[in-house]
Amino acid sequence: MKTDITEYNFPEDLKSMSEEELELLTYSIRDFLIDKVSSTGGHLASNLGVVELTIALHRCFDSPRDKIIWDVGHQAYVHKILTGRASEFDTLRKLDGLSGFPKAKESPHDIYDTGHSSVSISAAAGIAAARDIKKEKYEVIAVIGDGSLTGGMAYEGLNNIGDSKSKVIIVLNDNGMSISPNTGGISKYLGSLRTSKGYLGAKNFVKKTIGSIPNVGKSIADGLADIKNDIKYSIMDHGGVLIEELGLTYFGPVDGHSLADLTDIFEKAKNLNEPVLIHVITKKGKGYRNAEKSPGKFHGIGPFDPTTGALISKPQGFTYSSLFGQFIAKKGEEDSKIVAITAAMCEATGLEHFSQKFPQRFFDVGIAEEHAVSFAAGLAKGGMKPVVCIYSSFLQRAYDQMIEDVCMQKLPVVFAIDRAGCVGADGETHHGMLDISYLSTMPNMTILTPKDGNQLEAMLDYAFNLDAPVAIRYPRGSAFYDKNIMSTYCGDNIRTHLPGRVDIWACGKMYDCGLKVAELLDQYGIKSGLVDVTTIKPMDLRPLEDITADTQYIVTIEDNSVKGGFGMQLGAAVTGTGIKVLNFAWPDEFIPQGNFDQLADRFGLTAEKIAERICEIIEGKA
Amino acid sequence: MKTDITEYNFPEDLKSMSEEELELLTYSIRDFLIDKVSSTGGHLASNLGVVELTIALHRCFDSPRDKIIWDVGHQAYVHKILTGRASEFDTLRKLDGLSGFPKAKESPHDIYDTGHSSVSISAAAGIAAARDIKKEKYEVIAVIGDGSLTGGMAYEGLNNIGDSKSKVIIVLNDNGMSISPNTGGISKYLGSLRTSKGYLGAKNFVKKTIGSIPNVGKSIADGLADIKNDIKYSIMDHGGVLIEELGLTYFGPVDGHSLADLTDIFEKAKNLNEPVLIHVITKKGKGYRNAEKSPGKFHGIGPFDPTTGALISKPQGFTYSSLFGQFIAKKGEEDSKIVAITAAMCEATGLEHFSQKFPQRFFDVGIAEEHAVSFAAGLAKGGMKPVVCIYSSFLQRAYDQMIEDVCMQKLPVVFAIDRAGCVGADGETHHGMLDISYLSTMPNMTILTPKDGNQLEAMLDYAFNLDAPVAIRYPRGSAFYDKNIMSTYCGDNIRTHLPGRVDIWACGKMYDCGLKVAELLDQYGIKSGLVDVTTIKPMDLRPLEDITADTQYIVTIEDNSVKGGFGMQLGAAVTGTGIKVLNFAWPDEFIPQGNFDQLADRFGLTAEKIAERICEIIEGKA
Repeated sequence: MKTDITEYNFPEDLKSMSEEELELLTYSIRDFLIDKVSSTGGHLASNLGVVELTIALHRCFDSPRDKIIWDVGHQAYVHKILTGRASEFDTLRKLDGLSGFPKAKESPHDIYDTGHSSVSISAAAGIAAARDIKKEKYEVIAVIGDGSLTGGMAYEGLNNIGDSKSKVIIVLNDNGMSISPNTGGISKYLGSLRTSKGYLGAKNFVKKTIGSIPNVGKSIADGLADIKNDIKYSIMDHGGVLIEELGLTYFGPVDGHSLADLTDIFEKAKNLNEPVLIHVITKKGKGYRNAEKSPGKFHGIGPFDPTTGALISKPQGFTYSSLFGQFIAKKGEEDSKIVAITAAMCEATGLEHFSQKFPQRFFDVGIAEEHAVSFAAGLAKGGMKPVVCIYSSFLQRAYDQMIEDVCMQKLPVVFAIDRAGCVGADGETHHGMLDISYLSTMPNMTILTPKDGNQLEAMLDYAFNLDAPVAIRYPRGSAFYDKNIMSTYCGDNIRTHLPGRVDIWACGKMYDCGLKVAELLDQYGIKSGLVDVTTIKPMDLRPLEDITADTQYIVTIEDNSVKGGFGMQLGAAVTGTGIKVLNFAWPDEFIPQGNFDQLADRFGLTAEKIAERICEIIEGKA
Repeated sequence: MKTDITEYNFPEDLKSMSEEELELLTYSIRDFLIDKVSSTGGHLASNLGVVELTIALHRCFDSPRDKIIWDVGHQAYVHKILTGRASEFDTLRKLDGLSGFPKAKESPHDIYDTGHSSVSISAAAGIAAARDIKKEKYEVIAVIGDGSLTGGMAYEGLNNIGDSKSKVIIVLNDNGMSISPNTGGISKYLGSLRTSKGYLGAKNFVKKTIGSIPNVGKSIADGLADIKNDIKYSIMDHGGVLIEELGLTYFGPVDGHSLADLTDIFEKAKNLNEPVLIHVITKKGKGYRNAEKSPGKFHGIGPFDPTTGALISKPQGFTYSSLFGQFIAKKGEEDSKIVAITAAMCEATGLEHFSQKFPQRFFDVGIAEEHAVSFAAGLAKGGMKPVVCIYSSFLQRAYDQMIEDVCMQKLPVVFAIDRAGCVGADGETHHGMLDISYLSTMPNMTILTPKDGNQLEAMLDYAFNLDAPVAIRYPRGSAFYDKNIMSTYCGDNIRTHLPGRVDIWACGKMYDCGLKVAELLDQYGIKSGLVDVTTIKPMDLRPLEDITADTQYIVTIEDNSVKGGFGMQLGAAVTGTGIKVLNFAWPDEFIPQGNFDQLADRFGLTAEKIAERICEIIEGKA
């Protein structure tokens, strides 16, 4: 037994370790996870829940020859530890550091890059089909949470695997939660399997000796107090009817914290030549009492004190999400037609207060963005005023429904699009850098972007009165807000400074950056105007009327891709005038993880770099 | 009994008609449908299948107080006949005529505009939730085909209805087909219900007297030979396990051609206060032998001879779809890595030949575009070269998967995007006018658009060699093709005429229009150049190098929305040059049904209107 898990040669070493050593390893890994994530922040609870599952997978299967695909992917930390990346955990989720999600560029063991939910079954089906055509021999394993199973795409995948009979092993990691507790018929169904007679009959409380185990930190020991909640599996003959009706063989439920039981069932699955679903029961936050008690808080968390579980730096002041939540709870009182819909993101979108005050008017539909949007369209048809709260990058899932259901019928649905633009540490799969572009393609859609919390409030008021689709996109993180400021919004872009040789049009949160660019240019002797671009669509070009013959450059600044963004649209709109439009936006590529300032610096979106670049262009150096 | 169904006052009259009169009405309606659709073209087979179902719905429920939502919507012709629109059927699917889909603007009985698959359950859930909040009393009925049930969104809807327990009646119209025969576990599951013991036990062959019935045309009488396939329902105690596990009450299967049985079961469903799924068995093309024999052909069909079923004007020459099909079947022989994926559109996308030659390398995943794309990504990861064939507007469903799975991993998936641009009679829900815009937002995506069949071939060759994502978008309908022409494609836009005062950049099929515009301008004394824009992304601006100081205008022409289209992108790219870029594209609104020439004329996209407009601008009149 090594004292440091970075010293192992995983996954090879796993195969030669004794049962006792493996058992001890689970403590070392949990200790390591708590130690590292308490320092860097990251996804903790889900990873604590899959320690035994991941060890068993890498023991029973031969990665990367056998292909393990992690749905969503934020639960792949243990997999990373067991595939030679333990020593990189100090860089987790940092610029140029270890990703919080599987990345093929990091390791051949990362078969398929994930980030959004419910794709693993489809991806596994594709790899298995390729294997069968090429008559190769290897296993394909999709590990998917019960939360991801509420996404319709997972069902499309199951439906096709059940039909093709291609060998795929689906490991359903059932912890009874996505990020918020799950809703939906499928969740109740899984619950009924968990508590069914055969399962409870085999339930067995296991006691462990704690004090005598080496390499176990205090935080783990605290968590062990709950270990009696461990559960034993039994293979149920009648449980998985729903799964079997779709054409898959169902095994389970199995205790996801028993290495022996997991090993046993994986070996059984290997011997079959048909698609199998293995229903594994795990506990989110397992082994760390703080996370077991508050799995939602420890789903994705910033740096925290490992003993108390308290966040080290609590967010100061307001965030856009909290302001949205505060406003919508107040607005819900004034207007009984307002209903709120979220896709498994109640707390994170700020809807918790609304959901408690108006439970009948609050709908968490699970990870089901497509349904969320058409459901909202139905609510609007029924006379309500729905607000749909989904993160920018996840809303990509409902692109078609926004067009066909909401915009085509011109229904009064408000989209509160959180996490628009750069989101930081979650990286390329989660940045919301395309929404201005994709929303702009939708006829009848109004697109607004507030520069602060006061504008957000005013825009929400405007949106609920418009009787047509409105999208309000706002970023992750803190927002300026002063309750004494009376902000209004009337559908126009706001000129705050008259143009000079340069005119700056800055969208939403980038207004502050625009202000700073203007100051810097002033220092260089270049006079510039400034427009607070609150309104992306319909385009309000009235501030162009202030432009004089001296104005040679329009500078656009936005927290969105340059492709199809506001700047490109403005550039096309002033065609033939001779004015040169300079777009400052994210380039047309996938932007990596890192905090906003780091990424803005790298991609030339800080005020300093923008001002410098403008000077170069004016001076003819670029 | 009236001699002409346009003389009734439907739906009111339905309630006072005797059973015998209703039975006769089914013949009149089928006769009417065959008569009208044989003249206008349209969706026939699915509508023949729901005659009794629609009558029973409008008898048992009180539309529009009770809300009937038609999934996909092309099976709503009978509903239109029964809600006062029979007299408008001569204008079916024509410019400014009756739509082939539900449209709220046509009738208060059209509750929810549909066109894309699998949304009806979500929409119904939303309307029902609004009803419950407002404490109103009415029924909400979603009528959904078994084909639409392969779409994951339908499952998301079921999952939520099963959870909320809100009263919704889901009528599953099971004809064992979508457009092509269905695939997937759910299809086999429904099949097992159809043939299960309880069902077959109650099966009953019904004979009808044909000769004595008035108002029945010859085509109907022919179809009646198959009427012995009629089937009786029985309410099964054990059949609907999958549905019941999701939390819905299951009724069925019921004979969808028995008015009495349907009426009986709808009345039962009304009395329950919980979500119900009624499994109705119908025959696609019912009562018209030609359509029963070839339901695929009569799914959506042009004008035909009602007696023989033969198309009146067969398509002459090549279509883009047929050329694609021909090429891919040939290419499949040369390269054993090529696999083809379609979402329930095998014949229409031209893949029939490939599917027969290479059944192991062909995948029809059902109406499941999201799965189709991630499944293709998996196949690419497994070393294959997948081509995904989906219509432009349906591919909107997989916007997120194209970005996150294919482009982010830079996988060699070829998207063969059929029905790009204006599709004609299917109208606003089916036009593919956004693909250039939405594909352009995807990093790593290459977007090509051929002007003829030869270019299409050359582009497909290029695409399979690129080892990166490629989208080739081509329109519905006929394509020029000459097998003696050797076309090559190397990634560049092709200048065919040197620029004058005007330079025309025409995309794909609009090249011919561009050529004609150039000729017309020449007649007006305005010299213009011409660029064959084959490559939307990456943007190839090299033809700009030919522009001289005399060139004042660049004209772009494309069969796509102006928002985010090629023209807007080019406009932004030449910022500051003083050249005015004039975009000719579809406006940022939902474009109605009508044939291409009619719509091009209305929206100013004919060569004549474009040339005229350019002259006006040059002469300063606009």
